[in-house]
Amino acid sequence: MSNLLNIPRSELDLRLEKIREGMSGLGADALLVSANANIYYLTGRVFAGYILITDRECRFFIRRPLFLEGENIDYIRKPEEIPSILGDRRFSNVAIEMNRESYSGCLRLMKLFPEAEFRNADTAIDSAREVKTPAQIELIRESGIMQTEVYRKIPDLYRPGMTDTALQIAIETESRLHGCLGQFRISGNSMELFMANILAGDNADNPTPYDFAMGGAGADPSLPVGADGTVIRPGMSVMIDCNGNYTGYMTDMTRTFALGELAPEAVRAHECSIRICREVAAAGIPGAEASALYRLAAGIAEKEGLGKYFMGHRQKAGFVGHGVGIEINESPVIAPKSRHVLQAGNVIALEPKFVIPGTGAVGIENTYLVTENGGMVSLTTAPEEIIRL
Amino acid sequence: MSNLLNIPRSELDLRLEKIREGMSGLGADALLVSANANIYYLTGRVFAGYILITDRECRFFIRRPLFLEGENIDYIRKPEEIPSILGDRRFSNVAIEMNRESYSGCLRLMKLFPEAEFRNADTAIDSAREVKTPAQIELIRESGIMQTEVYRKIPDLYRPGMTDTALQIAIETESRLHGCLGQFRISGNSMELFMANILAGDNADNPTPYDFAMGGAGADPSLPVGADGTVIRPGMSVMIDCNGNYTGYMTDMTRTFALGELAPEAVRAHECSIRICREVAAAGIPGAEASALYRLAAGIAEKEGLGKYFMGHRQKAGFVGHGVGIEINESPVIAPKSRHVLQAGNVIALEPKFVIPGTGAVGIENTYLVTENGGMVSLTTAPEEIIRL
Repeated sequence: MSNLLNIPRSELDLRLEKIREGMSGLGADALLVSANANIYYLTGRVFAGYILITDRECRFFIRRPLFLEGENIDYIRKPEEIPSILGDRRFSNVAIEMNRESYSGCLRLMKLFPEAEFRNADTAIDSAREVKTPAQIELIRESGIMQTEVYRKIPDLYRPGMTDTALQIAIETESRLHGCLGQFRISGNSMELFMANILAGDNADNPTPYDFAMGGAGADPSLPVGADGTVIRPGMSVMIDCNGNYTGYMTDMTRTFALGELAPEAVRAHECSIRICREVAAAGIPGAEASALYRLAAGIAEKEGLGKYFMGHRQKAGFVGHGVGIEINESPVIAPKSRHVLQAGNVIALEPKFVIPGTGAVGIENTYLVTENGGMVSLTTAPEEIIRL
Repeated sequence: MSNLLNIPRSELDLRLEKIREGMSGLGADALLVSANANIYYLTGRVFAGYILITDRECRFFIRRPLFLEGENIDYIRKPEEIPSILGDRRFSNVAIEMNRESYSGCLRLMKLFPEAEFRNADTAIDSAREVKTPAQIELIRESGIMQTEVYRKIPDLYRPGMTDTALQIAIETESRLHGCLGQFRISGNSMELFMANILAGDNADNPTPYDFAMGGAGADPSLPVGADGTVIRPGMSVMIDCNGNYTGYMTDMTRTFALGELAPEAVRAHECSIRICREVAAAGIPGAEASALYRLAAGIAEKEGLGKYFMGHRQKAGFVGHGVGIEINESPVIAPKSRHVLQAGNVIALEPKFVIPGTGAVGIENTYLVTENGGMVSLTTAPEEIIRL
């Protein structure tokens, strides 16, 4: 028998308080959670079922696994059992996860509350999740330490004549042996990505269908991203972008590797990436506008004459940073039209990258914590210069 | 520059014909596809965008990647550009992917066709995808051959004192080096699973939140499935269930391994699993009811006195088989209430498994092709007996 709650009750209360603020902004008197990422946020574990939050209670309706123990638990086989368990409780505005749940799934949940109007719970939950609690920050910090140890080993994993795919496999294996869970959560149902993404040479300029910063043709048109079997050779950059998920809370880190020296323009672009990270991190104080941080980053690249390589060359990504936590692509996004204003407790991956034809992708990515007084502090601390393989 | 179509035009026409049958069943004069799995089904590649199918045309609206070439392509930045491209075309019934697309996503698409009513495209697409074409069957057959080679190597990967997690990592690495893409598609947004799932000893009896046949506590409550760090010892069964994705089309195979002999009841249950596979495969002819096949499987287990261990012990799975193809959990499902009637070209993974307290999980899983005259033919041909590690 396990306790349902895998976090302290006080921690749940902290998170519920933030969700309830969002509910009152929506005018919702009930909010129903069913997505794995949100169930994990609220309980510290994943179960199949629903969490119903009102202004005074938090109830758990569980389908699977059996045998969880705790307060306010009802075991159900299907959501249609929820109304009779609630008895004569009525709600006028119910928030459900309209961005995460399918249309059919939402219609099914709406039928449970025939008298209610419905709101989009995801906006409220995403806002709550944007600001990490001290306990969450500790788990993210831990992931950064683990990832940094794995990055330190990458040069030892390289063997002359290796393909990008073989190096990717070696890094993923090393990460797993180091405790990485081997899977990570991505928000949205169109995103597909590897734990350790790698781009060697001009494969970085192959456009992908995915809304990530990384390109690459991939091994197969069924999964067209990242390594394509390129043999790693001198003069190519080897960009390695890993999603470190050791505890359910992630960090996202990128470093650039090479055999010997890269072309001067690529080295200059790499140094520009490091500078962008430093300047955006210094400017990233509570109250800073995400859109202004994007303009700061893009402006530095422009001033260096590197604008045409910034965030991709033949195809560009439209952002320079994104929130990280339970999912690899959380709010806030650091993009031209972002309306987010930074808050202490935001955790943001900054990834100012350049794709230089003839060399490949260069630049770094760090996961930063937005602090009350010290700007953004990096939780991913591997050396930032181009690393010899 | 790549061609959008990564399958022959004749193959696309074959698949469109099946989708149009479904559309006419729904009374839909247009069907809009956007899910990766369905875009891959229709084009042999993944792109971000939409496919609009009518009774006479098939048009591609692509967001990313840039530079795809072919007929009937329009590049768009957002779906709101589609109506002006269509000009004065009007549709009265538009089918959209209501099971796969989010509620918010569907509302956005519905606004493109203000005069239309809407149908659920997923039922039509799933029915089309249920019956594989000869070209798809070849890719699935290829996956079965690759997976069989990997299974042959598993005893060599085992080292005395290994944990289930370490063996899982070794198998996943071997699979990747063998060409497995390292990611696979799962339908539904609540399913999370490893490429190589492993259950050693009594960890098999730990219930999971997921609607899969496999249990296991997992390494962390954020991903509670499969290996939990159990050291593999004599007397434990080691069930290895791999999702082989070498080409975008999958096979699903399970074999049971052990150090030395297992308890007689576990051996008997394993033999019962092999027998169930054979009898269900023989009965699985076109026209057979999926629910009757489930009853046949459960009945054999019952008659052997193994009903209480069938498909789990403390927590049971409610099915004994499932369709496989682009996603690991396609239609049809072989379950008590399934209304599916088998058709030639169905590809179905049968996984009659038993969890024996004190030993662990035993049994096999094969991926079968339903043939016109020969029942179900296995595409996963590793030896079926309990294999010595």
